[in-house]
Amino acid sequence: MKTETTIQGLTASLASARSSKKMIGFVPTMGNLHEGHLTLVRAAKKICDVVVVSIFVNPIQFGVGEDFDSYPRTLEQDSRLLAEVGCDIIFAPSVEQMYGTQPRLTNISVGQITDDLCGKSRPGHFDGVAVVVTKLFNIVQPDYAFFGQKDYQQLAVIRQLVQDLNIPLEVIGVPIVRAEDGLALSSRNGYLTPEQRAIAPKIYQLLKQAEQQLRQGEMLEQVLANISTELTQAGFVVDYVEARQTNLQPIAQFDQDLVLFVAAKLGSTRLIDNLQINFKT
Amino acid sequence: MKTETTIQGLTASLASARSSKKMIGFVPTMGNLHEGHLTLVRAAKKICDVVVVSIFVNPIQFGVGEDFDSYPRTLEQDSRLLAEVGCDIIFAPSVEQMYGTQPRLTNISVGQITDDLCGKSRPGHFDGVAVVVTKLFNIVQPDYAFFGQKDYQQLAVIRQLVQDLNIPLEVIGVPIVRAEDGLALSSRNGYLTPEQRAIAPKIYQLLKQAEQQLRQGEMLEQVLANISTELTQAGFVVDYVEARQTNLQPIAQFDQDLVLFVAAKLGSTRLIDNLQINFKT
Repeated sequence: MKTETTIQGLTASLASARSSKKMIGFVPTMGNLHEGHLTLVRAAKKICDVVVVSIFVNPIQFGVGEDFDSYPRTLEQDSRLLAEVGCDIIFAPSVEQMYGTQPRLTNISVGQITDDLCGKSRPGHFDGVAVVVTKLFNIVQPDYAFFGQKDYQQLAVIRQLVQDLNIPLEVIGVPIVRAEDGLALSSRNGYLTPEQRAIAPKIYQLLKQAEQQLRQGEMLEQVLANISTELTQAGFVVDYVEARQTNLQPIAQFDQDLVLFVAAKLGSTRLIDNLQINFKT
Repeated sequence: MKTETTIQGLTASLASARSSKKMIGFVPTMGNLHEGHLTLVRAAKKICDVVVVSIFVNPIQFGVGEDFDSYPRTLEQDSRLLAEVGCDIIFAPSVEQMYGTQPRLTNISVGQITDDLCGKSRPGHFDGVAVVVTKLFNIVQPDYAFFGQKDYQQLAVIRQLVQDLNIPLEVIGVPIVRAEDGLALSSRNGYLTPEQRAIAPKIYQLLKQAEQQLRQGEMLEQVLANISTELTQAGFVVDYVEARQTNLQPIAQFDQDLVLFVAAKLGSTRLIDNLQINFKT
């Protein structure tokens, strides 16, 4: 496994793979890797010859007052984990390597599907994601790119971006990896105190409970309101509890496939989760 | 020479060139080709093995009330001209082929350098250019892309876009081609009546005159005002007469290299031109 910190180095490392037409898989991350990330790498290994994992805490997707400075940087540990799952190349550029010394004037906005859910409470976040992902795609030029379904809205934004801009690669969404108690794995879980960590699985429990209630015919609005109430009672500050079609459009009819979304804070730690519910099968 | 009208067809046509590592050159156009475009193709032929010319009148870079519907479509004549200069592949997609049937949600904005000059009177124009050029770059995946310096601001926008998004290609700017009387070649020149066509070279004459005046030490503001006055007297409706640094930043000091920009209408036809003036050599 190689680690490259410059675009030039990465390009050189990938040159022979590219010229011998090996399938290149790409897993963009912000590091502080957990089993969720490693599952993405394993999925990439299955269908690609060469797997590149980027580790880059992207400043422009953090808002004012968000956790850019404190976001955990654990490159040594990440490298060990990535070597174990067969990652071929780590791309760990500096902010200057990614954004240069000249001001960036170009912005990319994916409209409509970023207007609500996380887009509402994190203005500019998805623009920052769209820009860095486009840059990384252009640098790595992979055949496949792998993203976790935990960041469901992000995955939808990237699929839209790739479609709208004809970016020549295939986006693969990989299911959420959860702790045994159901908590969706996230680097931000590390911020939780032991007490908060004990409460955190409540989100998934309520999502599963909501699924049952919906299957039993309870009204969506009431089910969503229940989640919100119970989260608040458990000590969360709820950002949103919403339901959407799988393409993030508003629910148009009863009994169509949908996704439930939750974002809620425990102390200063913001957790998100989602659950897709298929009615048609 | 092949003509491809679908992305899939173009990709197939380019596959062998790409796998045998031939240099691919790309000249994006809106068709109705003149000697300016053909000069771009010749420049591409000089350094590339395979030259792709796209002909696509891009709806999203035209504003309300602009000439999208009436913009001349002359594919047969264009094909003949392109065959003569050695173009290898024409890519002439439909609007549906380029934009699909689903709504596009992604926008690309290059800020600051699009705030004035043509950006001011054509709101959204450069966003439309940035989107279509990014799409075309992703479809063609060229090593080199060629743009005329007549659309100087557009060239600057594309250079910025390529730099900011790490698009893996080199942008080549090609000098303006002029008629014998100095008029910068443009597809829109075809809109001019014989009377207007006789007046149109005035723009370049005034730019050359301004260069002389500046070299003789006349004040920039006065020189620009003269151009504007004389154009108005000749029957133009002036949109702007401006000077910028070569990177489109405002002039910061006396005697630095600069570019003079003119946009002016004759009847309903909008003409643009520019002249770079180097003081340092």
